[in-house]
Parts: sequence; structure tokens; C-alpha cells
Amino acid sequence: MLDTQARGFEKALGVLLRANDTTDAAVVRAVTKIIAAVREKGDAAVLQYTARFDRLKAKSVADLELPKERLQEALNRLRREGGAKTTLRTFDGSDSVDALKKAAERIRLYAEKQKLENSFLPPDEYGNQMGQKVQPLDRAGLYVPGGKAAYPSSVLMNAIPAKVAGVGELIMTVPAPGGELNDWVLAAAAIAGVDRVFMVGGAQAVAALAYGTETIPAVDKITGPGNIYVATAKRLVYGQVGIDMIAGPSEIVVVCDGKTDPDWIAMDLFSQAEHGEDSQAILISPDADFIKQVSASIQKLLPTLERKTIVAAAMRNCGALIRVRDMGEAFELVNRLAPEHLELSLDNPRQWLDKVRHAGAIFLGRYTAEALGDYCAGPNHVLPTSRSARFASPLGVYDFQKRSSIIECSPVGASKLGETASTLARGEGLTAHARSAEYRIKNSEQ
Amino acid sequence: MLDTQARGFEKALGVLLRANDTTDAAVVRAVTKIIAAVREKGDAAVLQYTARFDRLKAKSVADLELPKERLQEALNRLRREGGAKTTLRTFDGSDSVDALKKAAERIRLYAEKQKLENSFLPPDEYGNQMGQKVQPLDRAGLYVPGGKAAYPSSVLMNAIPAKVAGVGELIMTVPAPGGELNDWVLAAAAIAGVDRVFMVGGAQAVAALAYGTETIPAVDKITGPGNIYVATAKRLVYGQVGIDMIAGPSEIVVVCDGKTDPDWIAMDLFSQAEHGEDSQAILISPDADFIKQVSASIQKLLPTLERKTIVAAAMRNCGALIRVRDMGEAFELVNRLAPEHLELSLDNPRQWLDKVRHAGAIFLGRYTAEALGDYCAGPNHVLPTSRSARFASPLGVYDFQKRSSIIECSPVGASKLGETASTLARGEGLTAHARSAEYRIKNSEQ
Repeated sequence: MLDTQARGFEKALGVLLRANDTTDAAVVRAVTKIIAAVREKGDAAVLQYTARFDRLKAKSVADLELPKERLQEALNRLRREGGAKTTLRTFDGSDSVDALKKAAERIRLYAEKQKLENSFLPPDEYGNQMGQKVQPLDRAGLYVPGGKAAYPSSVLMNAIPAKVAGVGELIMTVPAPGGELNDWVLAAAAIAGVDRVFMVGGAQAVAALAYGTETIPAVDKITGPGNIYVATAKRLVYGQVGIDMIAGPSEIVVVCDGKTDPDWIAMDLFSQAEHGEDSQAILISPDADFIKQVSASIQKLLPTLERKTIVAAAMRNCGALIRVRDMGEAFELVNRLAPEHLELSLDNPRQWLDKVRHAGAIFLGRYTAEALGDYCAGPNHVLPTSRSARFASPLGVYDFQKRSSIIECSPVGASKLGETASTLARGEGLTAHARSAEYRIKNSEQ
Repeated sequence: MLDTQARGFEKALGVLLRANDTTDAAVVRAVTKIIAAVREKGDAAVLQYTARFDRLKAKSVADLELPKERLQEALNRLRREGGAKTTLRTFDGSDSVDALKKAAERIRLYAEKQKLENSFLPPDEYGNQMGQKVQPLDRAGLYVPGGKAAYPSSVLMNAIPAKVAGVGELIMTVPAPGGELNDWVLAAAAIAGVDRVFMVGGAQAVAALAYGTETIPAVDKITGPGNIYVATAKRLVYGQVGIDMIAGPSEIVVVCDGKTDPDWIAMDLFSQAEHGEDSQAILISPDADFIKQVSASIQKLLPTLERKTIVAAAMRNCGALIRVRDMGEAFELVNRLAPEHLELSLDNPRQWLDKVRHAGAIFLGRYTAEALGDYCAGPNHVLPTSRSARFASPLGVYDFQKRSSIIECSPVGASKLGETASTLARGEGLTAHARSAEYRIKNSEQ
């Protein structure tokens, strides 16, 4: 519990304002070596690292590719076996595959709205016309973590915008430690329309996607979450290919006026905290009594959680309940924290929207639990972390499209623009530029 | 001269297909040290490196800031002294400051067209509404190289989109070796509306902009070109702040049907080649005779160039005149090269536009010299290099804006979405997520 009026608040806040310091020298060295090996030896290096790190031996990388029928099988098995059980007796009918499909449909609907289109300015007075042509990437790579953090929702959130953008081929890599795969993840890949899947993980998967091997095609952009080795590999291949972002630990800030059920707020905080011991969950409220109630709810509900050890560690390490003087101060704090997720658990939340300068996603109103956005509201759950909402955006269709400028000059227009270009080029000492422009000037004596 | 039909063509092309390998271990070590020093010692480190690398001693970083009047003085001096002289007798009236202002106006007009706006989907059947809020960055940093490569056009191309986006404060850093500054650069900063200018360069400038010092404010994104130290520093601070891109050497590909004046084509190739000895200039044509004519023009015009030594080296190292069988093959090559600049020196160039998958900027028709785009056509001259046009876009207003997702659920809508979210969350083993969603399900017994 913190109070903006108390001594030492700024120091405590400093601990909460996190930077994205994911560069670890030893990891950089290890990953640099892996990337070099994959560039040099291709498939052979991929096989070697997969045997070593994932205890998965294969004769060829082709054997590490999952045929499409394998994805459909996983989907059918999930449908048969039902997958998730919920505690809610009132909750019926919506089985696991249906839930994946419903989520996919909403994600697709939202993505379609985001699509960038060609655009042209009207021709200028000389008949010159400028514009931009928008096209999808040829090929994208989707990294999906294996093991504990194998999340089908991540597959949907990364793959669907790529497919909506019109990406020609979408290659997914997922580690299969000891050969083990997650049916949910494969079912999500089938629903999202992933084109090819390789059971490869770690930095070696990122290197293979970036540079290509004999069997794994090189892609133009790599997206998807991963551990520090994957994140470091993405940072190192950036430039050779595009990447989405370097994701840090998950974060939520809840601003509440004190009128939401404190159990709801406690559970919303937990829903981020359960991601990992470095996840950040912060409540900001002007109501000191309410903060005490939420604290009591935390004490009460924490022991009932499956992931209580992780949640308790996260709340202890990076959690905070902050009392502010007023709503103005609340939003000042929000903007300094620039959180990945921001819940405005307030009356008429839209009236406060103008106060929010930096947040990855903003959840309006007491009913809009952040978890709804993680799965199925529609907007992407891949969001800027570690205060990068100051400059970065949610993953979207636009991340799988790119623009080319179009410049078309009429003879008269080229002559007019040529005068300006020539003057500036000569000012910069770039006289070949100037002469190239001057050739197009009418009545030029050159 | 290359011919796609000749033996060894694929090997020769391999040399032309460049990767963006800008990571040099020794440079990374040096830059890592500079960044650490600036983070730790702030102004003191900036002063120390500026004295060492730029031979510019100052008592405080405040003394390294240029007052706004200094920019206006530079502009006035440029107006008085005229700046560039051109060789064209027919070219009159347009003095240096006018040329800067005309270019700025066209760049601004184009940038305004690019601005992203808030957008919302219509509410769904349950009254849930999703959308995105678009906002400018609070503060951007513009790195401007000093010395030889001090280009006023870069200042306009980086600063104007930032200002059009509505960036709150635009901080420029430019090294002043031995105290020397370029009036053109400062005049361009005045015209573009740069807010503050510091005479700091190199990795120390990038570090100061990324982390802030006592005097230089931390920014949210850093754009602008620079040498390998600057590029490496940008790569290393990426994540802490946004960056535009890691720019490689300049490139042009000209596709010509053989009906453009070969002198024009030669000069267009030179205009890229004069940027540096690693610049790439490639002509692609189905007409073998025309290729010989262009080759003759190159021999004839090369000795007349001010920067002939650089151009000759670039043409030798990275230049090529490629004969193709037909236009289909020409565009296959274009897409493999994914050039920064592409000139289509052809009849009815728009009919070929659909064939172009990858290019930073496309110049249509014989009159549209690439140099016009470098200075004043309007679209940005900061473009993806080293084949990154496969996934990256020109610098634009959108680089200085960011999106936040908005999610607003009605009570009924939250209940509906909660069912799907709960199922998927339980499938992922994230039960706090599930319970947070389930609290919002109507008639929930929880």
C-alpha cells in the first residue's frame, strides 16, 4: 500500500517504473552463437539444437514439420474430449472448440476494420501525383512457446491479423519438448489458418525463420512471445527481418472510484499477477477505505487460487495499492506508468478517456474485465509492455502490411520540382542529384 | 554488366542481395560502454564524450544547447548569402530559403494526408464497443549527423511528420565538430519547427535522448540517420525508446524499356552512387543496345562529376547493368532486390505497378527522377534499405503516433464474452483470468 502524500512515495514509484532491460551479456553470447550456427549449417544446426534443448531427435527437419492433418486431428480430439471444464453451473453449451472459434471470429472482425488501404493525394496544380501503395508481407513467422506457457490465444492473436492482412504464407514454430505438443495450440493454428508448423523452438527457431534453412523458409517478419533466448534472438535478427516487439512482463493498472466490488478488483489484479513472478498489478484509488477492502479481498481470495504461489510472489515483488488525492493525480500516475493494460473501473469511464496519454489497451467500466480482452473481445492482446505504450501500439493488421510511396511527375511538374530539388541538392553538395533533377527542367541548357 | 541468361548470374546477383549486417562486435562494446556512462553520469558523461569525440569543450550541457534565435540567425544568413549556386541559367528566383520552404510545404501536405485517426467499430449485438484511440508521442528525438553528411533535407523529412503528428516536443541533436555548424541544417530546423537543439553527437547523443540527463530530456522515440556508432546505439536502446529503423547504404534500381535518354539514366544511377562507396545503383533493361548506351553515358559523364571518386567506387563495388529477357523477369528481379528506390522509366508506368511487391518508393515515368523525391516531391525520403522494404515502410506521420485499444463491454456483453473467455482461460490453466471473467457472468453462482 502506497500513498502519494506519504514520504518516500517517489522512491517507491521509481521501483514500479520499469525499463525494458532484457539484454543479458551471457544470453547475447549464447544466442549469437546459435544464430551463426543456423546461418552456416542450416538444417543440421536446427536438428542439433532441437535434440539438445528439446530432447527431440529427428533425422531431418522435414520430420519436424507437422502435416496439416495433425492440426485438424488435434482440433477433433479437443472437440471430443471437451478440453476445459469450468466451475460455473450456469455456463453451458460453449465447448472448447466453439470458444476458440468465437474468439477467432471477433478477432477477425476487429482486424478487418484495421486494414490499411492504398491512398493517393489529388494531383497538384502541375499534374504531379503522390500516394502510397499498401501490400501484405509475403511471409510471416509466428513463434509459439511450448511447455507451460503454450497459449492458444496467442496463436489466434498473432495469426489472424497476419491472415487478414493477406500474408502469403504463415509459418509457425513451436518447441515440442520430448515430442510433447498441446492440442489447444494446434487447434488454434488450424482455426487461424496457419500454413506450416515446425516443431522447433528457442533461438534456433528465430534464426531459422530469419535466415531460412534448406527446409524452413526465410520469412519477412517474426512475431510472437518467448523466453529471454527468444527475445534476444529477435532483437539480434531485427533488420534482417521485421519483429513485433520485445515483450516484457505483463502489467495491469486498475483505476477505481471505490464503487466496484472489491473481490472483482482483487481478481482482476490476480489475473495479471498469475502470468509470472515479475508481473505487475497496481490499483490506484482516491478512496482509502476501498483500498483496505481490496486488501482484505486479496487476503481472502489469494489462498483459493490455483497459481497462488506465483500470484503471491508477483503481488509482493511488483504489486501496489496506491491511494491518490484525486482523479487528476490518478491519471498523472497512469501516464507515468504507461501500462500494458488499464482498467477504468469508474462511472462514465469515457469521460476520463482524454486523460489517458499512454496505455496499450484501455478497459472501460466495471464490467470490462481485462481477461475479456485477453481472449475474445476482438482487439489484440499483444500489447506494449514496460512503458513502451509511450511510443508503441498493439499488434495489428498494419504490422503485417507495408507501404511503398508512389511518386509520379508530369513533365511540367518535374520541371517545377526540379528547380527546388536542384537548389537543395547543391546546398548539400550532392551535385549528381542536382544534375539528375536539372535534366528534367524544361529549356534546361544542360 | 550482367545478363540473366549468362552463366554465373545467380552468383553475381547473390552479391547484390544485401543483408543488413550492421553488428560489429567492437562497435557494440564501445557503444555499450558509452550508453552505460551516460545512464550513470548523465551530463558529465555527455560533456566528456563531446570534448573527446567532437573537440568541443563546454562547462555545462546547457552551454551545448542552441537558443532558438541561433536557428533564425542561420536562416537569415542563408537568405542573405544565397547558399547554393546552380549551373542553370534558366533557373531563377528560387533562392535557398525559398527552396527549403517549398520542400517543407509539400512534405507537410503529404504528411497531413497520412495522419491516423481514432476509429471505433459499431457496437455489437450485446452493446459492446471496440475501437482504437490514436495519439501523438509526447516527445521525439531527431539525430542529425554533422560534418560531411549534414543534410537539411533529412531535418525536414524527420521533423515535419513529427510536428504534423502533434508530437509535444521535438529535440534535435547534432554534433558540432570543433564548434562548427551548418547553416542549412539550422535553417531547416527553424522552418520545420524543431523545439530544442543540442550540439551533441554520436552514441552519447542517442543515449542521452533515450535515458535523459539532468539537462537533455528523455524522448519516446529517436529517428534520423547516423554512422555505425549511432546506428548501433539506436539498436541497443530500442525497447527503452522507439526507433525508426537501422538504415543501411542507399540504393536505386531503375527499370527502363530503352526509350529514356541514356544520359538521364546514367545520372539517376550516379545520384544514388554519390552517397557513398557502398551505395548501390542498378539498371535493369531488356534492351542490350540500350545497356551499352547507358554504359557509354557512364563513361562520358563520370569524369564530369564533383564526387567522381565516390561514384566510381560505388559503381564498381555495388553497381550493375542487368539485361533481362522480358519485363516479367525484370520485375522478378526488382522484387528480389526489394530496393529502397525504384524508378520505372517506362511508358504507362502505372500498368506495371501491380508487379512491384517490394520497394520503399516507386518513381513512375521518365520525368520522375529519384532526386525529386529526395528533396521536395512530398513523400518521405527516409526509406527501408537492405531489402527491408519486404516488411518495412517509409517514415511517416504514423511513426510519431501510437494506438491504444479501447474495449467497453455492456453488462450483458461482458456476460456473453465472459463465457468464451472463461473456457479459454481454463484451457490455458489461467484460472484467475477465468474467475475474473466469471464474476461478470450473469447469474453466476460464484
